[in-house]
Amino acid sequence: MSADWITTLETPFLLIEKHKYLRNIKRLYSRIQALGGEVRPHLKTLRSIEAARYLLKQSDSPATVSTLAEAEAFAAPGYTNLLYAVGIAPHKLPRVAALMAKGVNLHILLDSEPQASAVAEYSRAYGLKFSVFIEVDCDGHRGGLPPHSDALLTLARIIEASGSTLTGLLAHAGESYSCRTDEAILAAARAECAAIKTAGNRLRAQGYACPVLSVGATPTAHFADDLTGINEVRAGVFTTFDLVMKNVGVCRLEDIALSVVATIIGHNREKGWIFIDAGWMALSRDRGTAAQSQDYAYGQVCSLNGDPYENLLVTTTNQEHGIIALPDSSAYAVDDFPVGSRVRILPNHACATAAMHQRYQVLSEDSLGQEVWSRIVGW
Amino acid sequence: MSADWITTLETPFLLIEKHKYLRNIKRLYSRIQALGGEVRPHLKTLRSIEAARYLLKQSDSPATVSTLAEAEAFAAPGYTNLLYAVGIAPHKLPRVAALMAKGVNLHILLDSEPQASAVAEYSRAYGLKFSVFIEVDCDGHRGGLPPHSDALLTLARIIEASGSTLTGLLAHAGESYSCRTDEAILAAARAECAAIKTAGNRLRAQGYACPVLSVGATPTAHFADDLTGINEVRAGVFTTFDLVMKNVGVCRLEDIALSVVATIIGHNREKGWIFIDAGWMALSRDRGTAAQSQDYAYGQVCSLNGDPYENLLVTTTNQEHGIIALPDSSAYAVDDFPVGSRVRILPNHACATAAMHQRYQVLSEDSLGQEVWSRIVGW
Repeated sequence: MSADWITTLETPFLLIEKHKYLRNIKRLYSRIQALGGEVRPHLKTLRSIEAARYLLKQSDSPATVSTLAEAEAFAAPGYTNLLYAVGIAPHKLPRVAALMAKGVNLHILLDSEPQASAVAEYSRAYGLKFSVFIEVDCDGHRGGLPPHSDALLTLARIIEASGSTLTGLLAHAGESYSCRTDEAILAAARAECAAIKTAGNRLRAQGYACPVLSVGATPTAHFADDLTGINEVRAGVFTTFDLVMKNVGVCRLEDIALSVVATIIGHNREKGWIFIDAGWMALSRDRGTAAQSQDYAYGQVCSLNGDPYENLLVTTTNQEHGIIALPDSSAYAVDDFPVGSRVRILPNHACATAAMHQRYQVLSEDSLGQEVWSRIVGW
Repeated sequence: MSADWITTLETPFLLIEKHKYLRNIKRLYSRIQALGGEVRPHLKTLRSIEAARYLLKQSDSPATVSTLAEAEAFAAPGYTNLLYAVGIAPHKLPRVAALMAKGVNLHILLDSEPQASAVAEYSRAYGLKFSVFIEVDCDGHRGGLPPHSDALLTLARIIEASGSTLTGLLAHAGESYSCRTDEAILAAARAECAAIKTAGNRLRAQGYACPVLSVGATPTAHFADDLTGINEVRAGVFTTFDLVMKNVGVCRLEDIALSVVATIIGHNREKGWIFIDAGWMALSRDRGTAAQSQDYAYGQVCSLNGDPYENLLVTTTNQEHGIIALPDSSAYAVDDFPVGSRVRILPNHACATAAMHQRYQVLSEDSLGQEVWSRIVGW
């Protein structure tokens, strides 16, 4: 039985089931703590102060953000230990400095000499001590320096010679999202740790303290088996999970805490199509499962209670229309979905779906109450 | 030479070139007026009151919206002739009624008996005279009733018997977005008009006035050659255009009025990758050109002045990272894009890219000044 408000609130809306959200957090935090690490959650999925309260126990609990807008918004209620995990653009340093002036320990990330030189120059010009992470490439996925590169030492020298601090190294096993077996994810997790430790040892051998080694991606965070020498683990989408993560093998369908509630607005009986009022504006254009073992099109259709309808997907989206095309020999008929009734859609990619909403409707732990969480927007 | 503010404003941001925006509007309006029709612009692309001023000359100029949130927002400054062109869900009627009570002529759309009955019931219960459009299917693209269907007459009867008004019919040649030749678009435009006229004639033969025949999609609006008997033409993305429309053949690259300005934040020299601070949060996940004649990946890279770099695309996006992978034998090298420099990205789908931004930065017609337009958000 659904809470009343879920059946009456204007659609489409984004629903978060709090008991699943909290269960997902507990699962990852328990396992990382048992391995001796600390979680530095990536707040980019929901970008919400209300959501972050369940991740950050203290004002100086470590956190990760993807934009300076998030850093500023999370600093406002007092969070002070924020890693801005996108390579710093030189023109953004004044905003970083402004947050530092307010007492925020905002760590920045870089992987090139022009960035390090820009930081050093700003550092000298304004007598500022930036806290810097260097990105290490562990799998060729995106940015970062190879663990054996000479540039690693060059950047460390430029940073520390200017009076700033090389706080640590960051690795992100982005390729782990493409893994298809548990063994492959475990191997990715071990490679992520091995790469960053190699880089860390080389820097420490040259006299750099480089105290923090930070690894993580949601898949590797759930499969790492040895965090010896690793200080912290980053992960983002683990709080809500999604169909991509279900396909990767990190969660079950019933762990997905985020869905979109939509209303049936019509049918095409000849074609076996059901129209809903959630198009890509509500679901996003993300097709993250397209290349995975199970393609969920634009999302898995569920009852309003959250029970998945077998083989029922949002097959097409326009801006404000979604089409659920009944497959041949479906167990369901168009009339099982009368105009005005409601369904829930599990998303391919929770980060992308959440990004389409300014507010999240949260079903409280008693499965009755309603909370509203707000999203931080912009850059 | 770029306006100063474009080189200094925080990135990523969405840029609209006003002279192209106005030129695109003039092009379509002139041609539809010459054909004896009226444009009922679809405001869903930019969802902006500032942007709509150039489309709606009078407070009762016809306009189309895709959500009730837009209807409410456009009603606030006094626009009164709004067609909500998504099939009405019965639970949304009280919001429609509230706008009608404020003097807004808000037309609703439907194509099924349950919807018509819900409207009739509400109409009777509250003594309200809704203005209703019935959707006619002209190409099997999405919703609507076939022009020869009996249901068309049934719905008209239900609507008018309740005291509401069948104001008109709406057809949308959604399949025209898949056309690959001018001849195919012209054929789609003719088919769209033919279908709605067939349906209109059948209703009028039964005594329904059904005064308005409304057709349109950006491709057909630009190719229709005879609007005899057609009252109005809807189109949305024509104001800004995008790479999808360029591929369809409706505009040239240099007509695209909307782009995203991004900063170079790093390189992977071995792979020939250039990183920018615009990921899918700024560009959207839309891959509308993937199945077209020319696949632009996540967007065409241009100089800050807007000149396209040949064969340079945003090949991959993460949430806040874009990757421009230099093709083999590229005319460009990584060092042509130093850290801190800026590029502009033309989008696959302007509606989807605009949806990722709450504000648009507008380059005024003198190519120097800056305006800021706001986006209406939510549902």
